[in-house]
Amino acid sequence: MSGNTIGHLFTVTSFGESHGTAIGCVVDGCPPGLELAESDIQPDLDRRRPGTSRHVTQRQESDRVEILSGVFEGRTTGTPIALLIRNEDARSKDYADIARTFRPGHADYTYWHKYGVRDPRGGGRSSARLTAAVVAAAAIARKWLAAQYGTVVRGRMSQLGDIVVPLTDWAEVQRNAFFAADAAVVPRLEALMDSLRRAGDSCGARIDVVADPVPVGLGEPLFDKLDADIAHAMMGINAVKGVEIGAGFACVTQKGSEHGDELTPGGFVGNQAGGVLGGISTGQPVTVSIAVKPTSSIRIERRSIDLDGAPTVVQTQGRHDPCVGIRATPIAEAMLLLVLMDHALRHRAQCADVRVATPRIAGAGG
Amino acid sequence: MSGNTIGHLFTVTSFGESHGTAIGCVVDGCPPGLELAESDIQPDLDRRRPGTSRHVTQRQESDRVEILSGVFEGRTTGTPIALLIRNEDARSKDYADIARTFRPGHADYTYWHKYGVRDPRGGGRSSARLTAAVVAAAAIARKWLAAQYGTVVRGRMSQLGDIVVPLTDWAEVQRNAFFAADAAVVPRLEALMDSLRRAGDSCGARIDVVADPVPVGLGEPLFDKLDADIAHAMMGINAVKGVEIGAGFACVTQKGSEHGDELTPGGFVGNQAGGVLGGISTGQPVTVSIAVKPTSSIRIERRSIDLDGAPTVVQTQGRHDPCVGIRATPIAEAMLLLVLMDHALRHRAQCADVRVATPRIAGAGG
Amino acid sequence: MSGNTIGHLFTVTSFGESHGTAIGCVVDGCPPGLELAESDIQPDLDRRRPGTSRHVTQRQESDRVEILSGVFEGRTTGTPIALLIRNEDARSKDYADIARTFRPGHADYTYWHKYGVRDPRGGGRSSARLTAAVVAAAAIARKWLAAQYGTVVRGRMSQLGDIVVPLTDWAEVQRNAFFAADAAVVPRLEALMDSLRRAGDSCGARIDVVADPVPVGLGEPLFDKLDADIAHAMMGINAVKGVEIGAGFACVTQKGSEHGDELTPGGFVGNQAGGVLGGISTGQPVTVSIAVKPTSSIRIERRSIDLDGAPTVVQTQGRHDPCVGIRATPIAEAMLLLVLMDHALRHRAQCADVRVATPRIAGAGG
Amino acid sequence: MSGNTIGHLFTVTSFGESHGTAIGCVVDGCPPGLELAESDIQPDLDRRRPGTSRHVTQRQESDRVEILSGVFEGRTTGTPIALLIRNEDARSKDYADIARTFRPGHADYTYWHKYGVRDPRGGGRSSARLTAAVVAAAAIARKWLAAQYGTVVRGRMSQLGDIVVPLTDWAEVQRNAFFAADAAVVPRLEALMDSLRRAGDSCGARIDVVADPVPVGLGEPLFDKLDADIAHAMMGINAVKGVEIGAGFACVTQKGSEHGDELTPGGFVGNQAGGVLGGISTGQPVTVSIAVKPTSSIRIERRSIDLDGAPTVVQTQGRHDPCVGIRATPIAEAMLLLVLMDHALRHRAQCADVRVATPRIAGAGG
Repeated sequence: MSGNTIGHLFTVTSFGESHGTAIGCVVDGCPPGLELAESDIQPDLDRRRPGTSRHVTQRQESDRVEILSGVFEGRTTGTPIALLIRNEDARSKDYADIARTFRPGHADYTYWHKYGVRDPRGGGRSSARLTAAVVAAAAIARKWLAAQYGTVVRGRMSQLGDIVVPLTDWAEVQRNAFFAADAAVVPRLEALMDSLRRAGDSCGARIDVVADPVPVGLGEPLFDKLDADIAHAMMGINAVKGVEIGAGFACVTQKGSEHGDELTPGGFVGNQAGGVLGGISTGQPVTVSIAVKPTSSIRIERRSIDLDGAPTVVQTQGRHDPCVGIRATPIAEAMLLLVLMDHALRHRAQCADVRVATPRIAGAGG
Repeated sequence: MSGNTIGHLFTVTSFGESHGTAIGCVVDGCPPGLELAESDIQPDLDRRRPGTSRHVTQRQESDRVEILSGVFEGRTTGTPIALLIRNEDARSKDYADIARTFRPGHADYTYWHKYGVRDPRGGGRSSARLTAAVVAAAAIARKWLAAQYGTVVRGRMSQLGDIVVPLTDWAEVQRNAFFAADAAVVPRLEALMDSLRRAGDSCGARIDVVADPVPVGLGEPLFDKLDADIAHAMMGINAVKGVEIGAGFACVTQKGSEHGDELTPGGFVGNQAGGVLGGISTGQPVTVSIAVKPTSSIRIERRSIDLDGAPTVVQTQGRHDPCVGIRATPIAEAMLLLVLMDHALRHRAQCADVRVATPRIAGAGG
Repeated sequence: MSGNTIGHLFTVTSFGESHGTAIGCVVDGCPPGLELAESDIQPDLDRRRPGTSRHVTQRQESDRVEILSGVFEGRTTGTPIALLIRNEDARSKDYADIARTFRPGHADYTYWHKYGVRDPRGGGRSSARLTAAVVAAAAIARKWLAAQYGTVVRGRMSQLGDIVVPLTDWAEVQRNAFFAADAAVVPRLEALMDSLRRAGDSCGARIDVVADPVPVGLGEPLFDKLDADIAHAMMGINAVKGVEIGAGFACVTQKGSEHGDELTPGGFVGNQAGGVLGGISTGQPVTVSIAVKPTSSIRIERRSIDLDGAPTVVQTQGRHDPCVGIRATPIAEAMLLLVLMDHALRHRAQCADVRVATPRIAGAGG
Repeated sequence: MSGNTIGHLFTVTSFGESHGTAIGCVVDGCPPGLELAESDIQPDLDRRRPGTSRHVTQRQESDRVEILSGVFEGRTTGTPIALLIRNEDARSKDYADIARTFRPGHADYTYWHKYGVRDPRGGGRSSARLTAAVVAAAAIARKWLAAQYGTVVRGRMSQLGDIVVPLTDWAEVQRNAFFAADAAVVPRLEALMDSLRRAGDSCGARIDVVADPVPVGLGEPLFDKLDADIAHAMMGINAVKGVEIGAGFACVTQKGSEHGDELTPGGFVGNQAGGVLGGISTGQPVTVSIAVKPTSSIRIERRSIDLDGAPTVVQTQGRHDPCVGIRATPIAEAMLLLVLMDHALRHRAQCADVRVATPRIAGAGG
């Protein structure tokens, strides 16, 4: 398949541009018989939606999803599920003045040289808006994984610029605009955002995502290890520059006696592995972190070149997120859901008949 | 395809187990007419080979590669290239005593539950030995990319445990057992390895890989972004727990005015992007870092369970690398080569006819 | 990818059901810069459209296609092209009475056992209506192949029941409802259809499709031979039970001295090969024939079973084509176009640099 | 993946050339725990082997298969199974004189223009010898399908030139060199072969293959219908020019009342469908026919051109099958086995949880 499809058995084929007619995707391979309605998908879309707080882009989109196919009388039929989201707030005039320049940190220059096309309408295909359709698709995976294994996937912002956000209470994540699992830190986050906005600058963020419980055995030996496919999915999110599983880069300075999670009849002792050993899930929580770069569109003047290669200056005026990382949380959840769903189907295709007497130990470490 | 193939047009299908008859791979999609002999492949294999210094596993393997097909009269024919490496030093007796336990940090537990198979011969399919065939395959990509674009891919160990290895001189990398680009640091690295060996412990490492020059335009919008596919390939290397492109996790605390690489007629100013914007190569060097976890097989006693789920203790005695990360350098190079080669073919399939008047600016930042 | 995508580089992912909200597809991998508008696609859709003569189904569908993405300012952008066709005449009441039975010759029984879903709305996903989206997608391939190689793909009905339709004049195909390349035979075809309609019965058809010119070199050695992929595409059309390339089944009784097309400086002598040797195009016209089974929905009573397995009788009353093969002509063209386009891109990905001094001989035989 | 892999979950990646070092394949996706030894594979290889009667090529190959990986202690491990067959009788001198000409009916001309490579060693990659590895791979599928569903796949020659071979007794197939299911016809077949040999000519053949029992539900709606994938696999066999499922081309002249198989509580009445409706298996026997063209290498002089495009004459002297179709029977079986196995895994991945109350009726028609 070409580049706009993800997954092997549970596949999502994405289409659309930021300011075109519509965005959407086709979800293929979903098991039949799953209860599904637009109302199952909309909540995840709403979490990702722009314009919900003053800290994210003020673009106005209701992001209403329409199921075009694959569902009959409230249940999936096993045939492709097409999801459509019409673009509403497509004010392309904001972008007319930048049509002849390449914005630093954006895909303008690369798209131009690859495709010979310069879509001046706010990023076109490279816009983070495209992730809305992915979030919609992942809501289906979320429902199926929950029904099948009780799997819950949830994410949180764990760092905004220099501010580390502690994990105090998962329930807090739904109560603030930052997906922060700690109420006390929110005023500091707001102050940072306000100061960046005044300075016309932006900052990066770190997002943590956890899936739990995850059945043991998901993943392929090589090359489609579970963690490899997670890394592919996560690095494919707009603006992501780094991916960690479990201990991540901290493992560089760890000792082997510190990193390797011991096994006991009561479960693994610790989860440095992040729930994956040899590319296959251990049954522990799968833990992933990603680094999201600072928003590239800022008010500060930046040097660039124009279509003729001549020097120019770019200064963004349009509506943009001060930190694109804020809304990355539901997107990162979505990506993890898609990978888990795909591997769950792959696993049962090959290994449905495997039975071992060894008890499965508790997933989480003590 | 199933999980043991990587790539879309330039594909590598891997087979073999650590202590079976042989390992190898089938390389499909190679352009015809490329001069190729075993002698083009052997040098890369030799760099990865065990037993070359006292700091890596003492397993004795000559790692002689045999080209079984796809080459006629010294040139590739465009048909599949099968590469075979016979296993020689397959002393499986070393492992007999651990056949009934699950080694912490290893894939024993996950393979057992996934496949119902416990291959006690040193990891079987999950062994790093499998990467030999990948390195062999990538030597073909290395030759083609060099001929086509002048691309050079090189890697180095940039950190061993707590010791950061500076980039002083790329030529040094070939002169020491650590792939260190600095001669002065080598004694400290040796001392660290000796002390770990005495303690029966291990440590992690960070590896940096760079490809330069890379043509502009490689990568797909989503989901198969160039960096996404690099992350997939890198995280698929044994023991890797983190992947960074360009600034990587440092971007979390960067400002937008700091991260976004400005463009000038003379080239990009800086390379925080790591050579990829919007998932497509910019023409700058592609820079990747990975975190390799400490060797899991250590002499220190570790708690585990046996096949019946009863508690036991594991203490590794066999031959193993004190730091598996040392030999990861040629493997990481190999993975980057495979991804670049695949995307080079994908790009010209779709965009061979694209012509733009805009000059391509120099890749490297100033 | 899952089963609803065709192609490797130029991919079409289909969605929709016969009587659902909409049908459509996502076309991925199209080269950028191709001029494209709905008006390029509509003519092919109109040729396939129901209700255009009294000999095909009377369902009323305008089959208006909407391009949702992938085209900007009249040219393809290289990103996915989503095509949407709303269903208009979805009178599902016609089908309510058959919801509990399995119609002979239809997919009702197999879908029920595979998916546990019985979509009583006229075939749901298995309806020939789905081919409208494929025809739309192929119109893009048609335009690109014509621009790139001058390739023309055209089809005709070569047999209706017992009546063989001679190839007198390709231009006639557009002038009658039967895609017959002979004006004189049309009254006999009409008489046959009328007699079948009176009898409540149906008949099969044979369709021939030709692509010419086709560049030499398209196809993969095995398994994705050009003819193998054509066979896959053709047998995937609803109601097709046989596929032939070139001489087809006639080759069983041919001698080698008769079948093997000789080569002369002036071109191949004959085209028994149908334009493919060893799975790779020769440069001759690619010639394909398919057999389309008689319409399964007939007025004559047929034995069947119901959802409980009890015997029942089925007699179709709804609107249906007396011979589904009539409209298969544009669909078969579409399938051939998709395969050629995909292989054109695959070929240049791998072999763009191949140059041989040997002149290419004229494709067509003398 | 590139063109030399077949299958989606149970994949076979082929490599090798007719007169190179070795041929073989990598089988990925096999369920673990299947008992497997070389002795399970060798019988199928022996049935396809050259030199077993005077009616097939006299090339001497023992076709000994070596399992290089994926099997441990007599059982599959779930990891890739590499199969290797060394070439023994590689007398390439036979072919030296034809190196500068393009043999009519062969792939010489197309390979030359596609790859710029002329492998004069008897067809190189396009040789039917490559099917040995496919037959070996399919022996694994044969074993698994038999164990899982009791499926038996068997083939027979149903026509040689003008001689139709009746289906008298399946057991006869193993007792003659023609895979004929009728003892009485064998002398006539021998006489035809002798007369062709004397004339220096060749003839075509028709092969029928049947799988029974086949579980209901295998196949994807579109495009990867079970019959579409069978057609792909069958047309990919060397020299095949036509594929039929069930009634095949006979359906063109059938009436709907004749073709559509009625359903009764006791089973389907007839099997015109060939076991597939709407692309999904019905539970009836899957019946497939293929047309194999006459051997292209004949003693009769044929016109051709040389590498410079100048006219020349080709007259084959080397060892060749008078009718390549004779040995196509085990190959056609192999292809059907691979497709069924792949779809069995695909089906259970998506639909493992489907339960319907409707009884499955007997597959075979009465």
